[in-house]
Amino acid sequence: MPIVTVSGPRITLEQKREMVRGLTEVAAEVYGRPPGHIIVIIQENEPENVAISGKLAVDRQAKSS
Amino acid sequence: MPIVTVSGPRITLEQKREMVRGLTEVAAEVYGRPPGHIIVIIQENEPENVAISGKLAVDRQAKSS
Amino acid sequence: MPIVTVSGPRITLEQKREMVRGLTEVAAEVYGRPPGHIIVIIQENEPENVAISGKLAVDRQAKSS
Amino acid sequence: MPIVTVSGPRITLEQKREMVRGLTEVAAEVYGRPPGHIIVIIQENEPENVAISGKLAVDRQAKSS
Amino acid sequence: MPIVTVSGPRITLEQKREMVRGLTEVAAEVYGRPPGHIIVIIQENEPENVAISGKLAVDRQAKSS
Amino acid sequence: MPIVTVSGPRITLEQKREMVRGLTEVAAEVYGRPPGHIIVIIQENEPENVAISGKLAVDRQAKSS
Repeated sequence: MPIVTVSGPRITLEQKREMVRGLTEVAAEVYGRPPGHIIVIIQENEPENVAISGKLAVDRQAKSS
Repeated sequence: MPIVTVSGPRITLEQKREMVRGLTEVAAEVYGRPPGHIIVIIQENEPENVAISGKLAVDRQAKSS
Repeated sequence: MPIVTVSGPRITLEQKREMVRGLTEVAAEVYGRPPGHIIVIIQENEPENVAISGKLAVDRQAKSS
Repeated sequence: MPIVTVSGPRITLEQKREMVRGLTEVAAEVYGRPPGHIIVIIQENEPENVAISGKLAVDRQAKSS
Repeated sequence: MPIVTVSGPRITLEQKREMVRGLTEVAAEVYGRPPGHIIVIIQENEPENVAISGKLAVDRQAKSS
Repeated sequence: MPIVTVSGPRITLEQKREMVRGLTEVAAEVYGRPPGHIIVIIQENEPENVAISGKLAVDRQAKSS
């Protein structure tokens, strides 16, 4: 059973519904498997736990505001 | 050092103790390593962060109740 | 930058193209980010490295043939 | 569906069978789920891709021989 | 874009800043890429979710105190 | 024991040595743990298994040449 993991910022319950619906559709189609064989896991990262260019997201946001 | 990661629903502290004891025993035995070389990490996923068949666990539960 | 990881059986290069195109479109749409902010990683698992119900995929296939 | 991922050195097919049988049994028991709901993924790391104490496994082995 | 994931105990915001600065510098240097191409994700594990030798960190701490 | 996983393109053995030395030093320093407590895992992704902007790395390279 293929597993799709999506790691990103916090999203709402409604966005999660859309996300898992869409990702499952794509994966089922490409693998040629029924949607019931596709697992999706959402990981929400706090802005103080993700960095690009050596700078935490929480610090980038503060700077740009 | 082998690492066993188990990703599933929330469990109690007592279940976690059983889980890491059991998984460590199996991994140590199969790898032929002492238990002190086996790391176990438990990841607990909220029902709104896991989906099968494009449907979040939180929505499946609601439907079946 | 959100990261989508898809873990499943081996697929062809053409299937990979379709996969990353589709997953990126969904993630970009739901997160409200440009596609250039979405990373996709494909992990291909050999049938002898995945199991359901305690049985390796390679052994299930053999049995069903 | 809980997912158990085990990351360690290369093992034989027979060891993989034992591993997934054992890990599945433990996880099914602790989660109170049927074994058919447990997925196991084995990741094999080359000795040049794992390090402890800042030293690759491949270099530790060479040194100790 | 290379991704560095660091999984360990809880740390302070200041430690996170140091961590992502240092890891990004090393990865950028070794890959020969600009720091803006390096993503770092921090995962903080609760002491009841990590075990060595089949014993949860939370139980080890209690014992040693 | 903290675990640092670095996922990127293929690198040479010498680059791997530098990588694990550097990442371990940073993690040991920030966590305040001895280097012997730090595990590093290197994951090398083929250019046909990574995408940004919905385009595989292998196709980006071909295009730019």
